[in-house]
Amino acid sequence: MKNYLKHDEWCIIEEGFHREYNEITESVCSLGNGRMGQRGNFEETFTGKTLQGNYVAGVYYPDKTRVGWWKNGYPEYFAKVLNAANWIGIKVEIEDEILDLNTCEVNDFTRVLNMKDGYLERSFTATLKSGKQVRVNSKRINSIVDDESGVIRYSITPINFDGKIVLTPFIDGDIKNKDANYDEKFWEEIQKETAFAEGYIELKTKKTGFHVLTGQRFEIFQNGKSVDFQGFPIKAEKFVASQVTLNVTANEETVLVKYACNLSSENHHVDDLLLKSKAYLKRIAAKGFDKMVAEQAEKWASKWEMNDIMIEGDVAAQQGIRFNIFQMNQTYTGEDARLNIGPKGFTGEKYGGSTYWDTEAYCIPFYLATADQQVSRNLLVYRWKQLGKAIENAQKLGFKDGAALYPMVTMNGEECHNEWEITFEEIHRNGAIAYAIYDYVNYTGDKKYLAEYGFEVLLGIARFWAQRVNWSEAKKQYVMLGVTGPNEYENNVNNNFYTNYFAVWCLKYVIEATEYIKSTDEARFNELATITNFDETNEFGKFQHIIENMYFPASEELGVYLQQDGFLDKELIQVKDLPAAERPINQKWSWDRILRSCFIKQADVLQGMYFFEDDFDLATIKRNYDFYEPMTVHESSLSPCVHSILAAKLGDKARSYEFYNRAARLDLDDYNNDTEDGCHITSMAGTWMSLVKGFGGMRVRDEKAYFSPFVPENWASFSFKVRFGGNLLNIKTTSDEVIIENLAGGDTSIFLYGEEQVLAEKSTLTVEQKDAVAV
Amino acid sequence: MKNYLKHDEWCIIEEGFHREYNEITESVCSLGNGRMGQRGNFEETFTGKTLQGNYVAGVYYPDKTRVGWWKNGYPEYFAKVLNAANWIGIKVEIEDEILDLNTCEVNDFTRVLNMKDGYLERSFTATLKSGKQVRVNSKRINSIVDDESGVIRYSITPINFDGKIVLTPFIDGDIKNKDANYDEKFWEEIQKETAFAEGYIELKTKKTGFHVLTGQRFEIFQNGKSVDFQGFPIKAEKFVASQVTLNVTANEETVLVKYACNLSSENHHVDDLLLKSKAYLKRIAAKGFDKMVAEQAEKWASKWEMNDIMIEGDVAAQQGIRFNIFQMNQTYTGEDARLNIGPKGFTGEKYGGSTYWDTEAYCIPFYLATADQQVSRNLLVYRWKQLGKAIENAQKLGFKDGAALYPMVTMNGEECHNEWEITFEEIHRNGAIAYAIYDYVNYTGDKKYLAEYGFEVLLGIARFWAQRVNWSEAKKQYVMLGVTGPNEYENNVNNNFYTNYFAVWCLKYVIEATEYIKSTDEARFNELATITNFDETNEFGKFQHIIENMYFPASEELGVYLQQDGFLDKELIQVKDLPAAERPINQKWSWDRILRSCFIKQADVLQGMYFFEDDFDLATIKRNYDFYEPMTVHESSLSPCVHSILAAKLGDKARSYEFYNRAARLDLDDYNNDTEDGCHITSMAGTWMSLVKGFGGMRVRDEKAYFSPFVPENWASFSFKVRFGGNLLNIKTTSDEVIIENLAGGDTSIFLYGEEQVLAEKSTLTVEQKDAVAV
Repeated sequence: MKNYLKHDEWCIIEEGFHREYNEITESVCSLGNGRMGQRGNFEETFTGKTLQGNYVAGVYYPDKTRVGWWKNGYPEYFAKVLNAANWIGIKVEIEDEILDLNTCEVNDFTRVLNMKDGYLERSFTATLKSGKQVRVNSKRINSIVDDESGVIRYSITPINFDGKIVLTPFIDGDIKNKDANYDEKFWEEIQKETAFAEGYIELKTKKTGFHVLTGQRFEIFQNGKSVDFQGFPIKAEKFVASQVTLNVTANEETVLVKYACNLSSENHHVDDLLLKSKAYLKRIAAKGFDKMVAEQAEKWASKWEMNDIMIEGDVAAQQGIRFNIFQMNQTYTGEDARLNIGPKGFTGEKYGGSTYWDTEAYCIPFYLATADQQVSRNLLVYRWKQLGKAIENAQKLGFKDGAALYPMVTMNGEECHNEWEITFEEIHRNGAIAYAIYDYVNYTGDKKYLAEYGFEVLLGIARFWAQRVNWSEAKKQYVMLGVTGPNEYENNVNNNFYTNYFAVWCLKYVIEATEYIKSTDEARFNELATITNFDETNEFGKFQHIIENMYFPASEELGVYLQQDGFLDKELIQVKDLPAAERPINQKWSWDRILRSCFIKQADVLQGMYFFEDDFDLATIKRNYDFYEPMTVHESSLSPCVHSILAAKLGDKARSYEFYNRAARLDLDDYNNDTEDGCHITSMAGTWMSLVKGFGGMRVRDEKAYFSPFVPENWASFSFKVRFGGNLLNIKTTSDEVIIENLAGGDTSIFLYGEEQVLAEKSTLTVEQKDAVAV
Repeated sequence: MKNYLKHDEWCIIEEGFHREYNEITESVCSLGNGRMGQRGNFEETFTGKTLQGNYVAGVYYPDKTRVGWWKNGYPEYFAKVLNAANWIGIKVEIEDEILDLNTCEVNDFTRVLNMKDGYLERSFTATLKSGKQVRVNSKRINSIVDDESGVIRYSITPINFDGKIVLTPFIDGDIKNKDANYDEKFWEEIQKETAFAEGYIELKTKKTGFHVLTGQRFEIFQNGKSVDFQGFPIKAEKFVASQVTLNVTANEETVLVKYACNLSSENHHVDDLLLKSKAYLKRIAAKGFDKMVAEQAEKWASKWEMNDIMIEGDVAAQQGIRFNIFQMNQTYTGEDARLNIGPKGFTGEKYGGSTYWDTEAYCIPFYLATADQQVSRNLLVYRWKQLGKAIENAQKLGFKDGAALYPMVTMNGEECHNEWEITFEEIHRNGAIAYAIYDYVNYTGDKKYLAEYGFEVLLGIARFWAQRVNWSEAKKQYVMLGVTGPNEYENNVNNNFYTNYFAVWCLKYVIEATEYIKSTDEARFNELATITNFDETNEFGKFQHIIENMYFPASEELGVYLQQDGFLDKELIQVKDLPAAERPINQKWSWDRILRSCFIKQADVLQGMYFFEDDFDLATIKRNYDFYEPMTVHESSLSPCVHSILAAKLGDKARSYEFYNRAARLDLDDYNNDTEDGCHITSMAGTWMSLVKGFGGMRVRDEKAYFSPFVPENWASFSFKVRFGGNLLNIKTTSDEVIIENLAGGDTSIFLYGEEQVLAEKSTLTVEQKDAVAV
């Protein structure tokens, strides 16, 4: 755990250059706008520790899969988020010496990510080997208004000399993914063009054939005035630049404003890329840096208006939650149903692929409550679009008749993970994908979605489960063999409670959804039945038989469900009895020892109780929580939030807060020593959930929102905004009161501590804060 | 299944060149002498399908492990059998045209592996593009007398022209392993030297630093007379050659005799390699080709004298069993305790590593019965030498206090396999290694071995088991979680019957062995106790508690042991009901489907009943056999032999013969479509076992040999030789009689069909053949 970033309510601040942590700061200071993003890299040359990263949404590369022992059914490739052309580069030479913070003396360094207005700013004084000193300030945005562009204002002021500086803004497309399996470069050059103060380079990905045109255009100002300059164009392999030599005078500022754009063939016709880029840059340059920055601040203000969370009395917590909300908004805007939420967003390339079950289990609840419902809907449609591939994927494994197995990791719907115990067995992901449909419909009331897209996905998933279980003659029940549950510290187990439970729920839900569609739109139902070759009597007959005869492992003696068959044969030790030196076990123990142990990576039975809490009485949840949590090592960033919500439900506020804290500042404090690879984007949504569902006790049932908030002891108050049923609500909780504002959307009512409360539009309701659990 | 090799009692004969099967024929025609070996490649250029392979025993390379997802405890590298310098090469140019059977017309082609005398001979007539015809005959041996050398007689006769031919005998060390993970070359050049008719090249392996010096020396004869010639030396990277231009006349034979040697730093001081090679070649050249071939035949005759098996009435079977015996003898001679038996011997490099549990479970019984007991003893000592590494290996996984886990695959004692479900979980290999000690002591009566080497290995293994089990509070018994049994179509199962049973047996056997050592050599026992830090009271106390309280999964209803917990939850289907198009399932099914199915790759419960048959009554064995065999797909070459032996024991001669046949000609008929990668050396020992233990019913108990032979219906008779208790016996069985010859070793007695029979030296006993099962 590191503690070098300054606590501030709205900014992430690095004061003094932390050279050794640079890759961490780069991750944390990433900018993104849903279409493109890049890490908080320096514009000028830096020969120290850095991970250069620029990413264009939807542009991926199928890297040849690396595997020791091939298994039938493995994918041929692993789709990787592609590190794309570096558009921020500005080489700075001062009297023939290259400005490089790794080799000069650096003073008064600050790097600030301003989350309120959405920009990254950096200042420093550099003393070169020659003794020359310069003051530099750079400020850049990744525009969320003009979302295929970014702009940088790079200011340099000589302190103790007059002389010559050379500025060379460039675009470098000769980029490699750090995690390329065979050290290959994935881009090839198509065309490039340079001019006086412009440069364009079009690159194409090998195999997938995505084209991305990255362009730059720049202006130079001295003493606040635009200056004429001579740009000397440079071309090299996958590289364009313009070199400008300028005379500078001590204490007079030279500013280079660099506009850049990334236009991809995903959004434009290939033939138009160059012309469109030129026009794009011309347009934003005409708008100018200041206006772009102002528009950016305005747009961010409107986002914060919708989804800010305020915490009083704890600046670190305030900063942490805003950082999470900021990153979620940078990563996915919901405008494009072809996109999804990568585990690292635009902050790094690790884990390849873009889509995990994290999207459905963790991110959708966030977007449901904080964004237009179209955003969540697009995430659902993304899976609908990939249904064909999910059916193919299941076929490869031997399933048939429209059974769909969604991939564990994907870019385009094809599986690109290759550990058999995950790829083939961690099939509970199918459950989360079905649940997200329920979640969306339940939250938004948009039941039409079921007929439009939902049914096909639900049926494909249900068909998979119905084929995946088998009848055990020994048990005279259905069993599900050979699965891996959410707790990946167990592999190839039989009858994972979570998976079995989810399978049955999916079967029930598709029946329920079908009833609704039939009763509201018979014609559409018939159409769907034809499309899916659906045989209601036989298929639902089989589903019903499984629903009624599924086996769930349980211990009557302990009154708990068993994570899987044979769980009680393990040596049952508690995490508190593990020597600190042996943790985290995923670093200290052999895989063999982990598998045999009782230790749980992340919620498994408890993840089920989180999803389906209304199916279990409080005593049952408490028994399971008390049994499993002490064996849980929480070595997944997705674990603490679920436990935080359950602890809140069980009335254990202190533990709920403790779990919240484990994830809330995960990246800011580099808790797991891996932020240098990028931020844990999807777990940020989990943190939001702990706060809103945990501390806020928010639930949605029968088109009504329920709240049962409490304030963690260390905070004076907290407030969160949610959109629900067309209303925008702000729920503020202090240790004494709950203040609910109905900010917009007409009159409505909600349940507070189980009691219905009517809220007129723009009214505020103040109620006494109660010690009560989520109901 | 292919059927292009001619059936013959002593030879493997390819008549007519089967270009498309060339790699298969190369595997089958491999020569080896325990120290070096090479595939049946052509001496002259061949641009068609070929897998060039030359191997030097004990010389391996730690290739960087390739893995998709790293697990703690994995080895850093995968030790590979190293493809070494090609010493057989002779480039042949005929009036500027290269002789290449891929580009010319080939007639009267034969390739013959003569197993009686141990040579490979090839003849053909080639018509070149120019119309010129030559007759070629090449004959070579890998000397088992001078076991660091080989010699080739290469004869070429122009048929329809007078002119010039150029012969360039060469050594090519610029060799790559076909299975290199990162396409690297593993050899680097140290020195080379060429002369008039000699050439030497010393290569060193990267990382491991083995030096191998490969040398050649040649003579040329025309019309039977040695001729003077001009050798033009050629050097290139890792390549030496001498080019000789000769005038030839139609129908006059030119013969090149090439002597070659491979001297390795494993057996010689590095500094001596060059000088010793020169002396070596000088010596064997003085001996001459004819004498070397004659000595080879003589030495093979004495081997066959000891271990031939004769089958009357079935040439294909005769050829098959001799091929297996021949390959076993070529692969391992037992002279060097640092060596072991690679799964492909000297016939290919697939599977890397050299030592699997195959050695103990399949090969040791063969060598015990057919070779000096020193041979088996050396195989045991090999494991003793690697005990330290086995202890380290266990430590890496979290075991302590001298617990030893032998690797699944190894060269030098370090694990080099990296599928977690095998590496960490297929731990039953430890059992086979302990069992081999029992097997050896039981067969030879050499109980002193226990005190000398056996105890330490047995204790290390027993300590592992004692730590690997855990007490189940739920069962109030010991359980063993997370293992993979011999049936690798199940992974990470709990309480694999075979493994649990073997663990308990190991604990019992170390106690028994300890009693023996204590009672016979107290001083040595005390010494061993000190070496191993052995605490008899506590350790044996724990062992005894496990022995008495181990859990074995079983079904009372079915009267069978269960392969593992939960086996009866599977859908129990029989192999006969599987559509042919779906087999072999390891090619047609996804791994996921295989794992969930009941189908068994190779004997698992039944492998246990094979090892410990005296622990179970016949009815129990039959019930288990009848339950499991129908679910067994036998997709391991190690499966049929065990079933053959059990079927024989159960009196099912027809099935016993059927199983025998499935493996007996595995490589000759390319049954599994993979002989091109090399021959299945270790399963050849299994075939021998089916015949001797199955049809011959041979068992050893209390220092007595038991036989209960029967003849398969299709055969007139069969006979096999075994060494036992200092005697050499020949047991011939016809449908009427059993004729036992006591060929050497003094008077003795054996049990035949359960009755003791006295055999005077050099006497023959004839007894009526009975329908009886092994007793």
